[in-house]
Amino acid sequence: MEIEFLGTGAGSPGKFRNVTSTALRLLDERNSVWLFDVGEATQHQILRTTLKPRKIDKIFITHLHGDHIFGLPGLLSSRSFQGGNEPLTIYGPKGIRNFVEVSMRVSETKLSYKIHYQELTADGLIFEDPKFRVYAQHLDHRIECFGYRVEEKDHPGELQVDKLKAAQIPSGPVYGQLKAGQTVTLPDGRTVNGQDFLGPAQPGRIVAILGDTRQTPGEEKLAKNADVLVHESTFAKGESKLARSYYHSTNIQAAELAKRMHVKLLLLNHISARYTGKMALDLQHQAREVFKNTKVVKDFDAVDVPFQKLIKAGAK
Amino acid sequence: MEIEFLGTGAGSPGKFRNVTSTALRLLDERNSVWLFDVGEATQHQILRTTLKPRKIDKIFITHLHGDHIFGLPGLLSSRSFQGGNEPLTIYGPKGIRNFVEVSMRVSETKLSYKIHYQELTADGLIFEDPKFRVYAQHLDHRIECFGYRVEEKDHPGELQVDKLKAAQIPSGPVYGQLKAGQTVTLPDGRTVNGQDFLGPAQPGRIVAILGDTRQTPGEEKLAKNADVLVHESTFAKGESKLARSYYHSTNIQAAELAKRMHVKLLLLNHISARYTGKMALDLQHQAREVFKNTKVVKDFDAVDVPFQKLIKAGAK
Ligand SMILES: [Zn+2]
Ligand SMILES: [Zn+2]
Repeated sequence: MEIEFLGTGAGSPGKFRNVTSTALRLLDERNSVWLFDVGEATQHQILRTTLKPRKIDKIFITHLHGDHIFGLPGLLSSRSFQGGNEPLTIYGPKGIRNFVEVSMRVSETKLSYKIHYQELTADGLIFEDPKFRVYAQHLDHRIECFGYRVEEKDHPGELQVDKLKAAQIPSGPVYGQLKAGQTVTLPDGRTVNGQDFLGPAQPGRIVAILGDTRQTPGEEKLAKNADVLVHESTFAKGESKLARSYYHSTNIQAAELAKRMHVKLLLLNHISARYTGKMALDLQHQAREVFKNTKVVKDFDAVDVPFQKLIKAGAK
Repeated sequence: MEIEFLGTGAGSPGKFRNVTSTALRLLDERNSVWLFDVGEATQHQILRTTLKPRKIDKIFITHLHGDHIFGLPGLLSSRSFQGGNEPLTIYGPKGIRNFVEVSMRVSETKLSYKIHYQELTADGLIFEDPKFRVYAQHLDHRIECFGYRVEEKDHPGELQVDKLKAAQIPSGPVYGQLKAGQTVTLPDGRTVNGQDFLGPAQPGRIVAILGDTRQTPGEEKLAKNADVLVHESTFAKGESKLARSYYHSTNIQAAELAKRMHVKLLLLNHISARYTGKMALDLQHQAREVFKNTKVVKDFDAVDVPFQKLIKAGAK
């Protein structure tokens, strides 16, 4: 699991930062890539990475401002052109379907795959499979905007076969029940708890990727205990009034949120073109005074999301 | 007058050529720039030039395929963001207005200027002012497609005042009539022709910028006597059947057209990603065997459109 930044700028493309797009690489986990927002020229940025458009099977749009969606028609077309055949799901605010469908219709683009649209209205669970859950949560921007929280489910511990053998528990279907952590009664009358024969569980990782927002309580639900929080930082320390009136956040507000919600790593994006070179580093220094593990990301930065330490079975 | 190529590739963006956009720089002539097609990331290409989006006052769309229009919403937004206030006119096939308006509406983009749409249905004159005429002409592509012919009006010769004085023609309102090339009767009864007192006229330049097309008679009207013909070259020598079935042209077909229509300079664009480096030069070599003054253009090539030699008054 890795987060690759395809565009870390705000509003308009600049020479050094493209408009917003963030890829969550889930190649080991599910052989796919999820995109969060698709600013113009995201497909051009992808050309400079090892990402394959056909591996993208979900696109999450935070909001419909142009710097977050104008790359979508081109990316969808190229995914088709490059042999993408698998269906793709687009999640986002109401209106995203109309934008994509009109773009495809006007340009007479016939895609080689099916798009499922899931236009969001309420907060809550929007996707679940055996390995992941994704939640959407309203933020507070000039137009309707969502943040997304991706939760990997815990990997249960391995069944400790040596320990079972030492306890003289014969193999058979009962192993399956013990592996699932159940308590079973053996033919010899003993009652054993599977939890006692499991190795440490591996907690799933949590990644929260927020859209443009000013400070709002909904952010806390998204960020809580996240391994990685990707948060906008359109404004700097001392500009919280400006940020509020433009429906954006400062680096300090993002850092305070990360600290309050016990986030492990904070990645700041949506950096204004006003902050070039050293000034972007200042954003980082300021934020680190509040929350040490903060990084201002650049286009093409790739950040690994590491597993946290194992949890002893039964400790949860 | 200069033609600057912002994207010279075909279909999808590649590492070396972006999708189509061509700028006609008319800074000396009218302090403005005209764009022909706006593929995705045209605004990104513009960032690497000296072009100012606010100077663009006309955009001509050849056809609605994505590689020719998906950069339009972003460019229009940035033109507004960067302080463009002057109205802008978009010419193109029916549907272009719907695409732009839906993109602006969904993204809640409020532009700081007015867009006039001129959706084309018939061939003929689509714009005229004291200095220029622009004609549109149907081509033959998979979807409705236009080529554009920009004609600069001739610059009339200067009135030769010394010669008038030598002929003892007194100054006065009559000079204006003579300058306009009229024949006038003087107070002393003489009849004089203004043409005899004009210096050489400067013929206006003709630039033809075609969209995607297979060979079709309409091309000839656009290309006739053009100083510069910009023509697609999606296929190479020997691939004319392929070109026909894909509604495209070969380099040879473009060169034959240029020769037949007495074009002065042929610029080949819409180059497929199949033709990299040396192979693109092969396209040029092949075409030059038919029409010597041919160039395969690259992104950011800028080509001056020179004046042709002066015409003696009365010679036309
Ligand atoms: Zn934004
Ligand atoms: Zn094309």
